[in-house]
Amino acid sequence: MTGDANAAIQALNRQYLQRHPLAAARQLEELAPETAAAMLGEMPQATLTRVFEQLPPSFAAALLPRFDDGPIIELMEATDPKAMVAILHQMEDDRAADYLQRVNPAVQKELNALRAYPENMAGSMMDPRVELFSETLTVDQVFKRLRQPGHRPKPTLFLQDDSHALTGQISLQSLVAARLDQPLHELKRPVAAFVEALTPQEEVVDLFEKYRFHSVPVVGMKGDLLGVIWQEALVRAVEEDATADMQAMVGASRDERALSKAAFAVRKRQPWLQINLVTAFLAAAVVGAFEDMIARFTALAVLLPVVAGQSGNTGAQALAVTMRGLAIREITTRQWARVVWKEAQAGFMNGIGVCATTCLGVYVWSQSIGLTGVIGVSMILSMVIAGIAGALVPIVLVRVGQDPATASSIILTTVTDVMGFFSFLGIATLFSGFL
Amino acid sequence: MTGDANAAIQALNRQYLQRHPLAAARQLEELAPETAAAMLGEMPQATLTRVFEQLPPSFAAALLPRFDDGPIIELMEATDPKAMVAILHQMEDDRAADYLQRVNPAVQKELNALRAYPENMAGSMMDPRVELFSETLTVDQVFKRLRQPGHRPKPTLFLQDDSHALTGQISLQSLVAARLDQPLHELKRPVAAFVEALTPQEEVVDLFEKYRFHSVPVVGMKGDLLGVIWQEALVRAVEEDATADMQAMVGASRDERALSKAAFAVRKRQPWLQINLVTAFLAAAVVGAFEDMIARFTALAVLLPVVAGQSGNTGAQALAVTMRGLAIREITTRQWARVVWKEAQAGFMNGIGVCATTCLGVYVWSQSIGLTGVIGVSMILSMVIAGIAGALVPIVLVRVGQDPATASSIILTTVTDVMGFFSFLGIATLFSGFL
Repeated sequence: MTGDANAAIQALNRQYLQRHPLAAARQLEELAPETAAAMLGEMPQATLTRVFEQLPPSFAAALLPRFDDGPIIELMEATDPKAMVAILHQMEDDRAADYLQRVNPAVQKELNALRAYPENMAGSMMDPRVELFSETLTVDQVFKRLRQPGHRPKPTLFLQDDSHALTGQISLQSLVAARLDQPLHELKRPVAAFVEALTPQEEVVDLFEKYRFHSVPVVGMKGDLLGVIWQEALVRAVEEDATADMQAMVGASRDERALSKAAFAVRKRQPWLQINLVTAFLAAAVVGAFEDMIARFTALAVLLPVVAGQSGNTGAQALAVTMRGLAIREITTRQWARVVWKEAQAGFMNGIGVCATTCLGVYVWSQSIGLTGVIGVSMILSMVIAGIAGALVPIVLVRVGQDPATASSIILTTVTDVMGFFSFLGIATLFSGFL
Repeated sequence: MTGDANAAIQALNRQYLQRHPLAAARQLEELAPETAAAMLGEMPQATLTRVFEQLPPSFAAALLPRFDDGPIIELMEATDPKAMVAILHQMEDDRAADYLQRVNPAVQKELNALRAYPENMAGSMMDPRVELFSETLTVDQVFKRLRQPGHRPKPTLFLQDDSHALTGQISLQSLVAARLDQPLHELKRPVAAFVEALTPQEEVVDLFEKYRFHSVPVVGMKGDLLGVIWQEALVRAVEEDATADMQAMVGASRDERALSKAAFAVRKRQPWLQINLVTAFLAAAVVGAFEDMIARFTALAVLLPVVAGQSGNTGAQALAVTMRGLAIREITTRQWARVVWKEAQAGFMNGIGVCATTCLGVYVWSQSIGLTGVIGVSMILSMVIAGIAGALVPIVLVRVGQDPATASSIILTTVTDVMGFFSFLGIATLFSGFL
């Protein structure tokens, strides 16, 4: 996709941009910012806006200065405020303030309000442009209002009483199924859950995971509606949260982003690296305990990475599969015995396969039947242990009330290294007469 | 949550079960099947159904035989067919066939049709109970029909012409905003994408990621509508797909489940373990090249796991953060230089911190300034290399047209092991006079 900007330009005709703004945005972001800005500049304003708000914020921020002044203002006013604020977050404060001064006061106020919420908080996920309906309206009156130009119906309607307090909600689906003369208060359902603007994204996702709402209202101190997090933003957050497990497993913060500052990454990762160091010393201590053996048979030292590599990978496979089962709620910790038994079997069977190749390789290299036997037996043993440990680590973490991802990979590596080295060097010591 | 079933029973009152079936299901699945079945048995049928279809299929399958015959049939007929089929998939074929015989012929036919689709295919994600609307109807006529009992409006309406071919779709939101006398064909939008029943779940997710549809129709050979995958199933699939990256990274199949058969796990994992073995031999060869050094200074062998552990963990952190950035489309491969530079810096700064602790530990243990200096320098060097490699591996995989997750962890470990051992043992050889 690198150089062939021309082919891309042909592929991206207006209709495509209009109909599939997200897909178009994905193709645009692979182009140089100048090229992308030139292409978008030729589009009608409505199309431009729809595509622009789907671009990654860092790329959109790079595009903005390349448009003319008039279109920039229109664009900033029409873009989904949530997306616009994410783009402003990518700029230096001075530059963002400069852009904000250009838009009309109402939008400026709205964007400034949203900008005040840190990223990864409910406030930055919400749509602040939500209409409230009086609960004394009838279904028919609501329909008439929604048919007027300028009302873009949303999947859920939020209701207020005379004092403007949020009193309930109605889905469009139940509105459509209702009698026309029914007043909304007869149809309303209580607002099942709401969050505050400073609720962390992770908690919003937990709520969504638990109740699968189609939208979550964000309320202020006095119970007033600040905005609504729609399903689209929820899905995005779910995805971000699911992939954050990978980071938590290896001791990187869930909050870290690919382009976070290096200092932020260091601050969050360093503690886990230090813990990992302690566990590495533990593994070294196991090797140290067999230092005499290694002095006599340096071949053992050469083969240490093989044992550690195989049991480490076997454990990592068991860990990944078990963690995912817990994350997508396919298993519960009650089923630990079945999972552990499966992983023990898989470790044993995989161990036999790996053992065969290893023994062949080690025999060719060392011509020693003793060494070959020792590594073969310890390979199977350590792979069974690795499988069991991989399944148990996340299950135990959940049982003691922890996130199953937290540093699970670091904990597991400790177990597989220590057990792998111990089984290999221990068996070698037992049978040292044959080496 | 183990023993306190009584507290749980009190917490789960009817209203809770009715309003929050998913949350209730999550609490029930932590109980013994007998207890859960007894509690659910006392609920009205509608509530029972809503909770039942939210349970993990394996747990629901364990509950089913504990209900009475009458309720079982009602339950099987009322449960979302997609969920019911997932439950039947958990049973032995004989038992599933036995249950299927009890329900009415229409439902039986429907369930059998769905059962024919393998899991992880579009057919098993769809809702087969979808009403088609003639495109000659007016908005007003549709509203009147939706208000009749037995029509549960869906978020999107699918349209057909006289020959029953699928011709377009209208969202409920645009229907509500339309004039009452407009015929549907004036409002319809083309069906932007559809899938076949045997389209793999992964491709459905790719489509959803690309276009963010709210629903995807599933069509048969002749373009006839078999069912619709609604947003809820899409969100579930997105989550399954996002977490599958963890498995792909370590060489387990994306299709493996926590309770897959051990033989399935072995078949899919064994090839990657064999590849990992080859790379482990590569690392062993590096150590082997320095066998003379190790014979003279066995302390080097003892410290090998420390170097490998730290560079491995540093690389894994960089890999996880970069992979996630690519997965949630926060960065593109064009930004590789920024990401690599960030990870190189992070590796260097983390290296200094880790180096300090390591040097202290190694000096206390060995009393050798030479050894301490060697491990300190090689630690920083190998952690910088690990950070760069961790960022580059997924970016290069994407650039050569691969899934960035595929075996990325195995590839990375090879690099970090080989470079870690080489830098440590190489520097030790250069400065062997000081050891």
